[in-house]
Amino acid sequence: MASIKDVANLAGVAVGTVSRVINNSGAVKPKTRRKVEEAVRELNYIPNEVARNFKMQKSKMVALLLPSIWNPFFSELAYYIEDELDREGFKLMLCNSGGKPEKELYYLDMLRQNKVAGIVGITYNDIENNVSHDIPIVSIDRHFNKKITCVTSDNYEGGRMALRELVKAGARKPAFIGSVTSVFSETMNRIKGFMHEAEALGVDYTVYEKPDPIVDDEAYFNEFFNEHGDVDGIFAITDMLAANYIERARKRGIRVPEDVKVVGYDGIQDNPYFHPILSTIRQPVEEMARMAIRLLYSKMEGEPLTEQVHRIPVTFKQGETT
Amino acid sequence: MASIKDVANLAGVAVGTVSRVINNSGAVKPKTRRKVEEAVRELNYIPNEVARNFKMQKSKMVALLLPSIWNPFFSELAYYIEDELDREGFKLMLCNSGGKPEKELYYLDMLRQNKVAGIVGITYNDIENNVSHDIPIVSIDRHFNKKITCVTSDNYEGGRMALRELVKAGARKPAFIGSVTSVFSETMNRIKGFMHEAEALGVDYTVYEKPDPIVDDEAYFNEFFNEHGDVDGIFAITDMLAANYIERARKRGIRVPEDVKVVGYDGIQDNPYFHPILSTIRQPVEEMARMAIRLLYSKMEGEPLTEQVHRIPVTFKQGETT
Repeated sequence: MASIKDVANLAGVAVGTVSRVINNSGAVKPKTRRKVEEAVRELNYIPNEVARNFKMQKSKMVALLLPSIWNPFFSELAYYIEDELDREGFKLMLCNSGGKPEKELYYLDMLRQNKVAGIVGITYNDIENNVSHDIPIVSIDRHFNKKITCVTSDNYEGGRMALRELVKAGARKPAFIGSVTSVFSETMNRIKGFMHEAEALGVDYTVYEKPDPIVDDEAYFNEFFNEHGDVDGIFAITDMLAANYIERARKRGIRVPEDVKVVGYDGIQDNPYFHPILSTIRQPVEEMARMAIRLLYSKMEGEPLTEQVHRIPVTFKQGETT
Repeated sequence: MASIKDVANLAGVAVGTVSRVINNSGAVKPKTRRKVEEAVRELNYIPNEVARNFKMQKSKMVALLLPSIWNPFFSELAYYIEDELDREGFKLMLCNSGGKPEKELYYLDMLRQNKVAGIVGITYNDIENNVSHDIPIVSIDRHFNKKITCVTSDNYEGGRMALRELVKAGARKPAFIGSVTSVFSETMNRIKGFMHEAEALGVDYTVYEKPDPIVDDEAYFNEFFNEHGDVDGIFAITDMLAANYIERARKRGIRVPEDVKVVGYDGIQDNPYFHPILSTIRQPVEEMARMAIRLLYSKMEGEPLTEQVHRIPVTFKQGETT
């Protein structure tokens, strides 16, 4: 295989000149540039990419840090993130953190070591103090106190929308069901929107939350059914929780949507073959993915980003449960 | 930040010695090694990973090439592949090829440029001539003619198992439904196993296949229902096709499993909340992922691999459709 020296010899220039042409750095006379380019073509010279990264001290790799790719919402997000990165020749490094802070910190370290050009992170841990606001990182759903750019669906409007859809479908005593994390997450705005809209419309509502993660589903739902037998509408914090509720309600003879209307959040179902098809607040996954990457590019180029949280509008998707 | 020179100065050794300790290459006296390691710790020295790769001319990155991460089977596979790679400090680069040959060839080029240490590929295209058998690549499901190691579920046994389960559930006229790709894929053994077992048991069977990809589902199923109205058992080549069949059968008043028993292939459902819960041949996804990576490591280390195709046993998962 041809080396950079072979190229320099053939073109009759110094190795440093070839390097400047390849890396597009420093001044090279047009005539010299042409000679080098011809020699590169003639010798079919392939620059060693690892070596190029070394010289240029930057990588064309972006890390995506998420709890688990084995989750339909995250895998759809990863799909569009990779697609958007590919347009600019960036590659995606996939990191399942398993929600473990130590794995998340490990990847932040990689960023500091210049192994990746930027990070898109979905974390629900308190890794705040390990993130400095001058490194290229964009968060999804997790709103840090520091100046980390965050892209999220409009959770607050989603919560309001869910309440209105439940009421429209006939619910008189809707409940929010979910879990509470110890650190602030944008998803908490779902409940805020739900409550504010219920108050604005004068609707009687219930909120049922337990600390995250819910380890005993059985106990979680038993307590709910025992204490809130009068509820006739459910807004679940995720589609999976909505589906879990519906299955348990069915076993108790509660019919959805006849007895209880149910609205989820996410929009994970992408085919009409499995039932129930959930009525849900659909996250704009593709737009969230593409915006996160475009914001990351701006950060890499050092552009100042003024708006901290970018909220993208959500839509209601009618299913079989309202 | 501390440099390698600072480490060398503190340890009282040459920079080359520090490098040998960090990269674990060449002979270093135990006492000297300890001095260097102490200096690294004391100065909190972080070796520049890009630079290390340059020196060692290898990357700790493995590329996973698949049609789309936005598919429950592939996202589960990616989850376990990343987990297995992480144990040895390797990172996963995710590449959605969208099934496009040109994107697959692009990643093979990256492998040649040393940017990745190996590839795990799931391809249904004919990129055969661009893959040489001395590079570290392991294929999943796609059995090349060349000596590319392939990891797959035992598709043939899966097909036999599906036929037996349909008969056990009462089917007297089972049909295989699927699509035919132009290049040989291991998944073709599903139909072989199904046919051979039917013949062995003296069961009357039907095979219904159209060229892949099926662009018009509607026409595909209309023709099937019109021509094969007497079928009382279905073995679908994937769970998604099984679910698609069941939905269309339901609209025609055909009940599953009362009128027709259905068995799928994959085992993509990981929760009991969405119905129908398919009776299916479950792929051993975790074992396939871990074995593919362990075989890839062996290839990277230059070990000769004798067995070309590694078939991992499948299991039948009872659902609501048989």
